[in-house]
Amino acid sequence: MFGNLPLALDITNLRPFVSREELTRREAAVAFCDRQLKEGVCAGSAFTGWLRPDSILGPGEADKIREKADFLRNNSDVLLVIGIGGSYLGARGVIEALSDSPERVVFAGHNISASYMAKLKKRLDGKKVALNVISKSGTTTEPAVALRIFGDLVKDRRLMVATTDRKKGALHDYAASLGLDTFAVPEDIGGRYSVLSAVGLLPAAYAGLDINALTRGASEASQAMENAPFESDPSRIYAAARHVLFLKGFDTEILSVFEPGLFYMAEWWKQLYGESEGKEGTGIFPASCTFSTDLHSMGQYIQQGRRRLLETFLMIGEGSADLAVPRSEDDTDGMNYLAGKQVDFINRMAYEATAKAHADGGVPNMTVFLEKADERSFGALIWFYEKACALSGLLSGVNPFDQPGVEAYKKYMFRLLRKPGYEPMEPDRSGRDIISL
Amino acid sequence: MFGNLPLALDITNLRPFVSREELTRREAAVAFCDRQLKEGVCAGSAFTGWLRPDSILGPGEADKIREKADFLRNNSDVLLVIGIGGSYLGARGVIEALSDSPERVVFAGHNISASYMAKLKKRLDGKKVALNVISKSGTTTEPAVALRIFGDLVKDRRLMVATTDRKKGALHDYAASLGLDTFAVPEDIGGRYSVLSAVGLLPAAYAGLDINALTRGASEASQAMENAPFESDPSRIYAAARHVLFLKGFDTEILSVFEPGLFYMAEWWKQLYGESEGKEGTGIFPASCTFSTDLHSMGQYIQQGRRRLLETFLMIGEGSADLAVPRSEDDTDGMNYLAGKQVDFINRMAYEATAKAHADGGVPNMTVFLEKADERSFGALIWFYEKACALSGLLSGVNPFDQPGVEAYKKYMFRLLRKPGYEPMEPDRSGRDIISL
Repeated sequence: MFGNLPLALDITNLRPFVSREELTRREAAVAFCDRQLKEGVCAGSAFTGWLRPDSILGPGEADKIREKADFLRNNSDVLLVIGIGGSYLGARGVIEALSDSPERVVFAGHNISASYMAKLKKRLDGKKVALNVISKSGTTTEPAVALRIFGDLVKDRRLMVATTDRKKGALHDYAASLGLDTFAVPEDIGGRYSVLSAVGLLPAAYAGLDINALTRGASEASQAMENAPFESDPSRIYAAARHVLFLKGFDTEILSVFEPGLFYMAEWWKQLYGESEGKEGTGIFPASCTFSTDLHSMGQYIQQGRRRLLETFLMIGEGSADLAVPRSEDDTDGMNYLAGKQVDFINRMAYEATAKAHADGGVPNMTVFLEKADERSFGALIWFYEKACALSGLLSGVNPFDQPGVEAYKKYMFRLLRKPGYEPMEPDRSGRDIISL
Repeated sequence: MFGNLPLALDITNLRPFVSREELTRREAAVAFCDRQLKEGVCAGSAFTGWLRPDSILGPGEADKIREKADFLRNNSDVLLVIGIGGSYLGARGVIEALSDSPERVVFAGHNISASYMAKLKKRLDGKKVALNVISKSGTTTEPAVALRIFGDLVKDRRLMVATTDRKKGALHDYAASLGLDTFAVPEDIGGRYSVLSAVGLLPAAYAGLDINALTRGASEASQAMENAPFESDPSRIYAAARHVLFLKGFDTEILSVFEPGLFYMAEWWKQLYGESEGKEGTGIFPASCTFSTDLHSMGQYIQQGRRRLLETFLMIGEGSADLAVPRSEDDTDGMNYLAGKQVDFINRMAYEATAKAHADGGVPNMTVFLEKADERSFGALIWFYEKACALSGLLSGVNPFDQPGVEAYKKYMFRLLRKPGYEPMEPDRSGRDIISL
């Protein structure tokens, strides 16, 4: 299935819904968007630095990230990463999927839950904590509050690193005033596309991942896919297929995985696609499922509910662990037909069965296969999703690199919290429609 | 806001989308469904035992559950709960929301991930493990495989409990052959409605929850809501509002919470609604968000994407922990305007802002308020959601108590795994459309 790339896209289960001919008819439109993207003339073209994975980091930056991560790792029990959105999900996605010691990296600044923070404080009690605070500006409420609450845990300033704007901003100034080591949030890459910059790579390196292989995997993917003809490029075919399906009324996409360790990659994907496409009244609604767990909760709806779902499975080629079903003498549970079989094999058969059943039920589906659960494969996966996302957004006529809607709740929140510069506002308590007994 | 019940429904942000008059016009239809439900003449009426929370447990059963849970708790480090779907999500939902020691309850049998199981085995190594296996039949693949893999961890049979069919089935026979204590999966309650039976209550009691208060909260809610006029009953108004919104094209509902501890309650809700309504080509697609985390990922889509979303917030009245934002001398981050403010207060303002911003953006929304994060409130919440779900399903003309679609993937899986009695099948490897390089 795999050639030079550790990633392949299986579109067999599109057959009853979208013909190859229909996809081919989109080749010119996709090529047009692709050219706009590369020539830097598309909407949001100032934020396409992720297109060239090799150039995301400056000269020597990868070495510096690795060295700093090693230093932190050797001098702490745990790394606390403070960040939200694009400064959170990419790192967490690759770490939970690939690291052998994901428990050594914990997260804050991605919520405003006092109960979460109090529990985390307790958990960090007595531990030697390193800290990586990630924010382009440093004024985003969630990470800024978390930095005030958790900053004191780190006594040795060498164990505190800021990933932020190269030249300006509150976090830049804060880091300068404390003399912290800093890494750059690239200027030409938006948050949700930034996982292969220091934003994602420093936490990943701390968690023991080979960050060079992540970059190399992305770089290989970019070169191979950019030079491939339309019909053998997974990124252009995925973009075209989603576009055709959307026009046919399939307006919700479920990313389905069969490993709980992929949960946060799916969350990363939801941000990437939802934030890139969901604007101006259009866009495919992104959801995710972890199977087989959710086959026993969301499975009924997917199989027989309203027919406007499309589904993409993300499957990894190699077995996840050596574990077989034990034989039982009396076979009360009737499971001896599985005795000696690898659990991972059963899981794969569950996937095969699900993809087929969902297609039968009217859910067009595709599968992204990765060769291995390793950094090279995930680098390719990240680039594949980013490229296809940019193309998808451009195909539907939106700017895939902005997120104007994220400000709406912030404006009200700042007014309610009486932030200087905002017109104060009170919560609306009178004349409400409350149903109670 | 609260009267005799610890639950209230705020529908203020429906105003631009649904008038009170439109809701009132549904009163008769809702009353008709309600009568059918109570008189046991609706579709699936054999599964309405949850309607009377007081009668879910038999005489003395609550005491037995508590005693057994105490025994297990006093003689083990950790309880391993093996179950999937309705035998998993309810218990996990209330435990993660309310327990002070959620880490003492771990879960298996809700997936077929070898890597998950191998990690869990490692984590349980050297611990004294109690086990509660929950399955009506005992032949569901996921829990049956997990029981074979984890069953050996428990040497003392008194630390192993089966929650299963009262009279028959593989797990019933297995428990009888080992002489295990058993608790009943009620015959007149389907999996997703079963959290207030032994299915949910034994794990909850082990986690230190007051299971009597859970039942009492549900019972109070049932009595108050059943006797209330339409316009002051949260369950009937919620059902009517969803139905009206669905008819207007709002066909995806997001349950949004502002506490990560409510994640699994949202998962429970997704099963309850998705499995009850998603059939025969209809049903509202259930999704969930944890804010403010997901305001920085899904927020853009919710604010400005395709306008077919409705949203229900689940908020809890009392503060989640005493934690204030520290003052900083230099105020580099400009956050001193929040100094001394409770983190929980900021979180609540984020909620107020979000509900308002989403309504502005074209997302009709409601809020379910609970008085406290306690068992009585959650008992009321559970009954409220169950009752409204049954009414919603009946309003849209489906059987809210079956789940025929869940079998579809199983049939293929059994064939692929060569289960006796199923026609063997091979994975389809030839003639596939693979896009690769």
